[in-house]
Amino acid sequence: MENLRVNTDRLIRDFEALAEIGATGDGGVHRPALSDAHLAARAWFKNRVLDAGLEFQMDAAGNVSGRLPAPDPAAKTLLIGSHLDSVPNGGRFDGAVGVLTALEVLRTFRETGITFRYHLEAIDFTDEEGTLVGLLGSRALAGILSPDELENPRGGREALAAGMARAGLTNPRAARRLPEELAGYLEVHIEQGPRLIEAGAEIGIVEALVGIGSYELVFLGRADHAGTTPMDSRRDAGLGAAALILAATDAVRGSYPDCVVNFGRVEVIPGAHNIVPGRVNLGMEFRAPSQARQDSLEDSLLQLARRTAETHNLSLQETSQACVPPAACAPEIQQAFELACRRLELRSIPLFSGAGHDTQALAAVCPAGMIFIPSTGGSHNPKEHATRQAIENGANTVLQAAAVLLGG
Amino acid sequence: MENLRVNTDRLIRDFEALAEIGATGDGGVHRPALSDAHLAARAWFKNRVLDAGLEFQMDAAGNVSGRLPAPDPAAKTLLIGSHLDSVPNGGRFDGAVGVLTALEVLRTFRETGITFRYHLEAIDFTDEEGTLVGLLGSRALAGILSPDELENPRGGREALAAGMARAGLTNPRAARRLPEELAGYLEVHIEQGPRLIEAGAEIGIVEALVGIGSYELVFLGRADHAGTTPMDSRRDAGLGAAALILAATDAVRGSYPDCVVNFGRVEVIPGAHNIVPGRVNLGMEFRAPSQARQDSLEDSLLQLARRTAETHNLSLQETSQACVPPAACAPEIQQAFELACRRLELRSIPLFSGAGHDTQALAAVCPAGMIFIPSTGGSHNPKEHATRQAIENGANTVLQAAAVLLGG
Repeated sequence: MENLRVNTDRLIRDFEALAEIGATGDGGVHRPALSDAHLAARAWFKNRVLDAGLEFQMDAAGNVSGRLPAPDPAAKTLLIGSHLDSVPNGGRFDGAVGVLTALEVLRTFRETGITFRYHLEAIDFTDEEGTLVGLLGSRALAGILSPDELENPRGGREALAAGMARAGLTNPRAARRLPEELAGYLEVHIEQGPRLIEAGAEIGIVEALVGIGSYELVFLGRADHAGTTPMDSRRDAGLGAAALILAATDAVRGSYPDCVVNFGRVEVIPGAHNIVPGRVNLGMEFRAPSQARQDSLEDSLLQLARRTAETHNLSLQETSQACVPPAACAPEIQQAFELACRRLELRSIPLFSGAGHDTQALAAVCPAGMIFIPSTGGSHNPKEHATRQAIENGANTVLQAAAVLLGG
Repeated sequence: MENLRVNTDRLIRDFEALAEIGATGDGGVHRPALSDAHLAARAWFKNRVLDAGLEFQMDAAGNVSGRLPAPDPAAKTLLIGSHLDSVPNGGRFDGAVGVLTALEVLRTFRETGITFRYHLEAIDFTDEEGTLVGLLGSRALAGILSPDELENPRGGREALAAGMARAGLTNPRAARRLPEELAGYLEVHIEQGPRLIEAGAEIGIVEALVGIGSYELVFLGRADHAGTTPMDSRRDAGLGAAALILAATDAVRGSYPDCVVNFGRVEVIPGAHNIVPGRVNLGMEFRAPSQARQDSLEDSLLQLARRTAETHNLSLQETSQACVPPAACAPEIQQAFELACRRLELRSIPLFSGAGHDTQALAAVCPAGMIFIPSTGGSHNPKEHATRQAIENGANTVLQAAAVLLGG
């Protein structure tokens, strides 16, 4: 099957049709998980699946699939997928490219008339973006979605209940599949950063997905009058928070160049021009490529926070929040992608993923891996853009990697 | 009138009733300028004015007054006042003691049955605390409120428009009064620092008030994905703001020990854990004891802000907001307070005010002066506290100083 290629015209026609569903008028789409627009995209996808002569399937977590069954009903399933939901006012490429590639790969395999040793399944996972519950669909399928997360969803209990009702879902955790049912998982996604373009590479083969740690830090000082309290008598919580932001950034740049830290949520209280900040609520998020690095980074950042609080005569509260462990991509999947790139004469580089993806959940239950294609204009916004050539390269790489895994 | 004294029980009853309006449950009050709670306090004040047989008056800036007219309609007016608004979640003493003292002084004078050479006016000035526009009411009355400050108010244009609509104001600058109309201005306020208590003094006679400058600085970077954007590719507006906060604090401590700077209002946008801050709106306020020092400090701080923006690859917008020049209190008013303290056998010391007050605005248009009474628990917070005795001392000092100015 080395010379097999996807039908790029057909893939792009589908891509453009899908981009109309939930279109925001500025080139982007608004398809939050289980919203009307998202469910309309899924209904459209179902029609494309049936038009292609594939079997349609929806599971208890709302994940929808097109299937190309193997002759042996007991065969394992090779999953290929991504997600049709978007962040609010997001871009048209994020997730959509992966799902439509999966569909196109199955259509291409089906047209060969060959029978395969695995069932092939093009799958669209529910709520990759975490509007309601982060990686809801893929974690339900992998059996790593806890009841607690459905009880206290990030998007609020009412929003989750309303979305589940719209989609006809009652017990997402019943979507669980067992490791012995699955042959592997492949995904293509736009890169949400500049590294492929900077390196002049066409395909990024993901080695691992970062772990993500998150703390709510509270610096407590004293809210004083900003005119009558001399600088040296203050306990300025804002000064402590500022000092930590600088020190943590320096520490990561210096000692953790493979990691990132972000202080994206800052509340300065009481928040008046003429009052010394008495309290700062500071969200600190950090990502590392391995568990060892994540643990080390977490220690360093917390020590910095404590030292900074002491230096500025503040007290400090630390609350650990969501924590996603790093996940490695399966070596056999990475090798399949590498071989695919050689067959296609595409220049690939190994990459870490700084973002979370469905692949991270699938890695808990089967050999999983993913590739990135170059994208410009940032991500999670209407300006994100992957070229026709990049989408074609990604689709053929997934096709050929699947062929390798199928023994061809 | 040397033996005239205020009715302390009546004054304290009023004080306690007023403290219920906008009460926060922790002993403080929340009455930002032109909020519903502030307007409720003004409605209550109007009733107290009318109950006392005084004339009620509201001017174009929303300043509300109780008046005890002199027989001669062409007489000048001696103003006594302060403010009923508070900072968010502030204390019950700041401002309120001054307005209720003014009311009590007028009631006491009225009860003598004497006629006076000046109209007497107990006045509550709009927005002393600068929630919308710093010293809005007193600067409008003094004719030193620029149209530009109403166009670019510190609290935002929408908040100012909403507040003005609630209070029925259209053109605050029309509240202007001319120097030939005014005999002087007296104010009593809690000290917002520890000096009176440290000195064992009962009354602080203010010699001069600091100048206050204020800027809205906007650092503009780029809101990126906090997982996929390497630290060195970021244009993190939060990092720039943090760097300025530290550098400005160091500069003031090192080169401007007689001055202060504060970054009390910080908005980090878009404000999500996993998005690099693309924009920070940063309120910068600074105070200096003389015009020369204020000009020099302003230059230094703006240069620091520009250098910081450049270093962090950010753009910077600077909007100058309320600017209050340093002001000296009138020698004849200081002398009247000194004589009052001698009559009352109260120990007074001269003081400098590190806070801005309505006195500062009035100094531009008439002989103005103020006294402080001791207060514990800091200021601009629910714990601020002046004793009944301190309030009584302050009220009698204002009463006697007014008597001196009235020739008695």
